[in-house]
Amino acid sequence: TAKASSKGIPIMTRAQRFHPLDPLSAAEIAVAVATVRAAGKSPEERDSMRFVEAVLLEPEKNVVALADAYFFPPFQPSLLPRTKGSAVIPSRLPPRRAKLVVYNRHSNETTIWIVELSEVHAATRGGHHRGKVISSAVVPDVQPAMDAMEYAECEATVKNYPPFIEAMKRRGVDDMELVMVDAWCAGYYTDADSPSRRLARPLIFCRTESDSPMENGYARPVEGIHVVVDMQNDVVIEFEDRKFVPLPPPDHLRNYTPGETRGGVDRSDVKPLIIDQPEGPSFRINGYFVEWQKWNFRIGFTPKEGLVIYSVAYVDGSRGRRPIAHRLSFVEMVVPYGDPNEPHYRKNAFDAGEDGLGKNAHSLKKGCDCLGYIKYFDAHFTNFTGHVETIENCVCLHEEDHGILWKHQDWRTGLAEVRRSRRLTVSFICTVANYEYGFYWHFYQDGKIESEVKLTGILSLGALMPGESRKYGTTIAPSLYAPVHQHFFIARMDMAVDCKPNEAHNQVVEINVKVESAGTHNVHNNAFFAEEKILKSELEAMRDCDPSSARHWIVRNTRTVNRTGQPTGYRLVPGSNCLPLALPEAKFLRRAGFLKHNLWVTPYNSDEKFPGGEFPNQNPRIHEGLATWVKKDRPLEETDIVLWYVFGLTHIPRLEDWPVMPVERIGFMLMPDGFFNCSPAVDVPPGSSDVDAKEAESPKAIQNGGLVSKL
Amino acid sequence: TAKASSKGIPIMTRAQRFHPLDPLSAAEIAVAVATVRAAGKSPEERDSMRFVEAVLLEPEKNVVALADAYFFPPFQPSLLPRTKGSAVIPSRLPPRRAKLVVYNRHSNETTIWIVELSEVHAATRGGHHRGKVISSAVVPDVQPAMDAMEYAECEATVKNYPPFIEAMKRRGVDDMELVMVDAWCAGYYTDADSPSRRLARPLIFCRTESDSPMENGYARPVEGIHVVVDMQNDVVIEFEDRKFVPLPPPDHLRNYTPGETRGGVDRSDVKPLIIDQPEGPSFRINGYFVEWQKWNFRIGFTPKEGLVIYSVAYVDGSRGRRPIAHRLSFVEMVVPYGDPNEPHYRKNAFDAGEDGLGKNAHSLKKGCDCLGYIKYFDAHFTNFTGHVETIENCVCLHEEDHGILWKHQDWRTGLAEVRRSRRLTVSFICTVANYEYGFYWHFYQDGKIESEVKLTGILSLGALMPGESRKYGTTIAPSLYAPVHQHFFIARMDMAVDCKPNEAHNQVVEINVKVESAGTHNVHNNAFFAEEKILKSELEAMRDCDPSSARHWIVRNTRTVNRTGQPTGYRLVPGSNCLPLALPEAKFLRRAGFLKHNLWVTPYNSDEKFPGGEFPNQNPRIHEGLATWVKKDRPLEETDIVLWYVFGLTHIPRLEDWPVMPVERIGFMLMPDGFFNCSPAVDVPPGSSDVDAKEAESPKAIQNGGLVSKL
Ligand SMILES: [Co+2]
Ligand SMILES: [Co+2]
Repeated sequence: TAKASSKGIPIMTRAQRFHPLDPLSAAEIAVAVATVRAAGKSPEERDSMRFVEAVLLEPEKNVVALADAYFFPPFQPSLLPRTKGSAVIPSRLPPRRAKLVVYNRHSNETTIWIVELSEVHAATRGGHHRGKVISSAVVPDVQPAMDAMEYAECEATVKNYPPFIEAMKRRGVDDMELVMVDAWCAGYYTDADSPSRRLARPLIFCRTESDSPMENGYARPVEGIHVVVDMQNDVVIEFEDRKFVPLPPPDHLRNYTPGETRGGVDRSDVKPLIIDQPEGPSFRINGYFVEWQKWNFRIGFTPKEGLVIYSVAYVDGSRGRRPIAHRLSFVEMVVPYGDPNEPHYRKNAFDAGEDGLGKNAHSLKKGCDCLGYIKYFDAHFTNFTGHVETIENCVCLHEEDHGILWKHQDWRTGLAEVRRSRRLTVSFICTVANYEYGFYWHFYQDGKIESEVKLTGILSLGALMPGESRKYGTTIAPSLYAPVHQHFFIARMDMAVDCKPNEAHNQVVEINVKVESAGTHNVHNNAFFAEEKILKSELEAMRDCDPSSARHWIVRNTRTVNRTGQPTGYRLVPGSNCLPLALPEAKFLRRAGFLKHNLWVTPYNSDEKFPGGEFPNQNPRIHEGLATWVKKDRPLEETDIVLWYVFGLTHIPRLEDWPVMPVERIGFMLMPDGFFNCSPAVDVPPGSSDVDAKEAESPKAIQNGGLVSKL
Repeated sequence: TAKASSKGIPIMTRAQRFHPLDPLSAAEIAVAVATVRAAGKSPEERDSMRFVEAVLLEPEKNVVALADAYFFPPFQPSLLPRTKGSAVIPSRLPPRRAKLVVYNRHSNETTIWIVELSEVHAATRGGHHRGKVISSAVVPDVQPAMDAMEYAECEATVKNYPPFIEAMKRRGVDDMELVMVDAWCAGYYTDADSPSRRLARPLIFCRTESDSPMENGYARPVEGIHVVVDMQNDVVIEFEDRKFVPLPPPDHLRNYTPGETRGGVDRSDVKPLIIDQPEGPSFRINGYFVEWQKWNFRIGFTPKEGLVIYSVAYVDGSRGRRPIAHRLSFVEMVVPYGDPNEPHYRKNAFDAGEDGLGKNAHSLKKGCDCLGYIKYFDAHFTNFTGHVETIENCVCLHEEDHGILWKHQDWRTGLAEVRRSRRLTVSFICTVANYEYGFYWHFYQDGKIESEVKLTGILSLGALMPGESRKYGTTIAPSLYAPVHQHFFIARMDMAVDCKPNEAHNQVVEINVKVESAGTHNVHNNAFFAEEKILKSELEAMRDCDPSSARHWIVRNTRTVNRTGQPTGYRLVPGSNCLPLALPEAKFLRRAGFLKHNLWVTPYNSDEKFPGGEFPNQNPRIHEGLATWVKKDRPLEETDIVLWYVFGLTHIPRLEDWPVMPVERIGFMLMPDGFFNCSPAVDVPPGSSDVDAKEAESPKAIQNGGLVSKL
């Protein structure tokens, strides 16, 4: 079914069902899993297979370019280079591939499989896939991410272990139904943590009421029990009841369920606030392709990263569709705790690599997680046993009013022009044990892209001896304390500022503002200026934030200029940030060398995606990943630039963070800097101000609001 | 009309018409002006009077306490100390007073008048005021803020000055209608700027089309003309056509009016987004008293500061109404420019003290400046000649949905609790010449107060010689450039954390996070902790931001503890910030010594309100105001604490900031820190998720949105 484009080049719509960047469908995952399982050499191997992830193997960028030129929107044949003046139009795209991470529970081996998926029936008949193994390779000396099924297995293993049952009895707990075992990854501290064994070092909590499933059990940490679980064999391999710490008394403020189940009364005066979009949303969706207010991009989703934003571009009048980024996502997180005592020094969750931000995502609800006209995307995964699981309504896409966009009132005439800002927000939320993280990408009409993380959920607490307080945290309730910690997030941004397909014409410039020296050129002592420095190679591009010099970075196109002759670019504007508050020898920094700087820049390499390596769990290799790659000191003066922005917040807990923490926000901004010739928001039309009649129409409001009349 | 309170103490409602903190009414301003004018000693003095401001003289705090106890909401007699067990109930409050700043155009003197206003008729009959002069005092060696009428006079004076007309002719401009003269204050650089004369050093711009009132004239700065105007006598006193800089060519991107008047086409795909509050807002208003979601406070407005928030408190269950702050406002702004060349080194607007944030506020429009159910407050002023002017809809108060408030999903049960955040926003927007500033105070259900400034409007540009570029700014268009500059804002916060009336039990603690030293107490090298330090006196309390140590400050009550026995407090959490990028000898820093630190703390003193003094315009006194007051080094260990938070952003202009700058945001947060025993947001009820039906009901949306069906 080919149709003619406006330029006479045939466009092959529907020749393929899936864009090369579409996440694997449920059917594709099922085929990929079946293909791998069938390739197992023995019944025993097949039985031992545990499917940690099955994810799209993203194709090379030229395949994406081909798809975007002829097969899928944005249908841009003119962007592809032509051979001898005429376009080369392929008849179809190469088959999609899946990458599977499989843990062999018998051999304790981790294997990466590549499976090619071909469609054997036409898309119109529902599609039918067939898989072919392209490669399989054992990855030595790693442990892949922990799976939700293992969380449950670990809990059961510990709760059935007689010495543990004894230890809980010693603490006055007979009912093992009350006990919660959270399977934290072991990290790497000594050879005993080597990936030759699959380990968990669980944290123990204990609820007080067996008939209350929503009781907040994190309010009673069980301290003093040392337990290590072999997750391969589901056995406790180390156990010691080291110290008798009494269970904290039940905190009467521990619950957060509504009203009486919490033990309180809910507010009754929150009146409804409804977002009404009577003409529907301003966005258009075609599969995973999103168009909104001159922006367009594709949505993806992976088990490790969760939401991925691909092929971000802005349609800029006669200049057409101008790319900004190939791929944006969060590729790792680290949450190191600052208490040197057991078990807290072991807490430094790598939530992407050890657990999976995507695998732990939520199914969202309108009116609660999201407001307004929502477009949800589902996400499909393989579970540990190889069955396909779907998180419905996993990614939320919607518009938001965002206050005023710009305004000017002329003092001579009193005439004002004011515009309201609308933003498009794409997000997902995940839970990793006690904590919740929401990841948001906001697109604005003025060309900005904002990345925002919202932190909420339940603090990871410790128990104190009666009367004890701890230098390394905040006492939250009697015998309960919350250790200080930091949350670090690593955004990986494969940029494409004004790069057409197959172009790699970007570089990164650091800007620092400098006070001008004294002298005749600065007689009033007021002068300062922005100093630019090209980050020429990887080792030069390990940089930290410096608010005192208004430091920021610009990704510039080396061959495209704006109307003043300056290179077009996008600014990375840091928000609040910090660096790890740990001594350089801290064990978690072995695995998290990438935390040592706020900015890293690398030339694009499809193998370099996870800054602590693909398998940070129990990783014995010092500084695997980003901190090692950059040692090559590859040139960056004109290439396909990947930015790694590392940002964190230091969390000194407050009583008000308990029992569930009000959302804390942190993020950064990508902002056009000479990318456009003037503000791209200048063409936003005025809003209507004729809603004034509304107030008068609403007599209820007047009654409820007391004296809401004009003073 | 006394009514009985629930505790049997009679409450005198309506005994007075105005709360002691209500802004002056239009009638009161008229009476105050008439009273002062009548007190003029001669017809000549009366004619010479120019009314810079007429503002409520705020009473002592004990008068406010009395009013809040017996006469006005929150009606809290129990909070006042009792004499011998029984409450002393006054029969009425003392009369209100007005403070007037009057400039004598004949003598060049500035006089502060205090007028007592008494109501001679009952409120029910509309009220009738009579004024009595309490005092008048000439303030030596000052120049008060410039008035809007003076802006116009200055423009006329310059445009009628023959050598100026000549100079414009030399630049090819014959039509003086095109010329714009913006009267900037002179600052203080040399004795020639002494306040013995009332000076303006205007900036000149020139439009291109005489019939287009909304043309952006700031696109053609006229350079090279030196002109100083004596504003007392409306004469040009210095004039020199120093350098011939051709007018920049008309920039075809200079306009921002809609559609064709801009020369472009507006976006047509912004679909309506309506905020519907069918049951009205959740707030209740009684005069200037606001109640919302356990918060209550009063609204005020002054010519210099604009919006003032008084008597902020949170109703905390059985603990009742707990005060947090007496008074919150923005008391000064400084915008120093970084170009050492004429005229830019002179640009360092003190927009509060030199012009008045309140006097330059806008009348707001629903649907444009504000969305949702709005309660507006008008603001009344005297104009320069003594007539009352009203800015209708000057302060906007409304609710906003603010995303998720908190969430936790239990991984064992899959059960989730999620709440949406609602905030109450109080704001106003002002224009000072080319720039716009919006000042916002947001109140949240989790006890946070956020202060946010939105910056928009038009860049202050310079012209370049053909082919020239300037180290100190960004070329925006041919021959047009925007110098680098900084925007500083000074929030004054008179705190009252858990202080009942007449209590002064606050102190400020600085928190810095420290990495633990190496050793046996830190074997894993991961330890860090929050170190507290009391800021004992004013000189100790001059502090700067330090993100690397997560530095913040807590205002604590010295005598009230939370359930863990720690003092109750509120955290001041800085946002992004900077310090002046100028050499210490910079002339503008003489007047802006308060910019040298991000935080200052003083004990409350009713005379200490403006950090650069009340009259920064042409101020010759080095470091008048805050930087001088703190030299007394008054003790702060237990007092009525005033925080002065100074925050700024360094603006390196982008092409995208032209022709009108998309809103930039900067601010800070006040956050409860052990003030509550747990999260005050835990009692927010769940939202309704039954809006799912909505999407299906809206066939239009599906049509417009393309393939908006579930994938
Ligand atoms: Co935290
Ligand atoms: Co600016």
